[in-house]
Amino acid sequence: MTLAPYVGYLAAALGTICWIPQAWKAWRTRNTSGISLVSNMLFLTTVSLWLLYGLLVSDWPIIIANIFAVIAVLTIVAAKLKYK
Amino acid sequence: MTLAPYVGYLAAALGTICWIPQAWKAWRTRNTSGISLVSNMLFLTTVSLWLLYGLLVSDWPIIIANIFAVIAVLTIVAAKLKYK
Repeated sequence: MTLAPYVGYLAAALGTICWIPQAWKAWRTRNTSGISLVSNMLFLTTVSLWLLYGLLVSDWPIIIANIFAVIAVLTIVAAKLKYK
Repeated sequence: MTLAPYVGYLAAALGTICWIPQAWKAWRTRNTSGISLVSNMLFLTTVSLWLLYGLLVSDWPIIIANIFAVIAVLTIVAAKLKYK
């Protein structure tokens, strides 16, 4: 079971950064027509709830990871609303 | 602290279903030009790693949530590759 924590940390780290290319692409190209606003609003709610969860249980890795995720997804939602 | 588990369960449930509208939209409209393949491949890796993590630690909620997430994101990536 020594592998599990590393898999978990790698997943958490990737989950933190994976939406940066999407945010960058949306603002650079101003093409957001294929992006689902519903999905991204639901995902924004998801990562906001994870952030709240992290704050409630005082878990810093969850807090930090989801602060980054909230910022990235907010940036995508803002681009979608601006360039729809 | 009695609120925390409910916030966590709600976040987990939303995270499971939130990409279904994006997958549906991509296949229905065939418009995937605004979708970042890099972000979705990274996110597919992320949820696959969470699935592996769930299997390694035998955590059924993590396993089930990420099976659904892998299916939804695979569907988005497939649409992106087909209609790019």
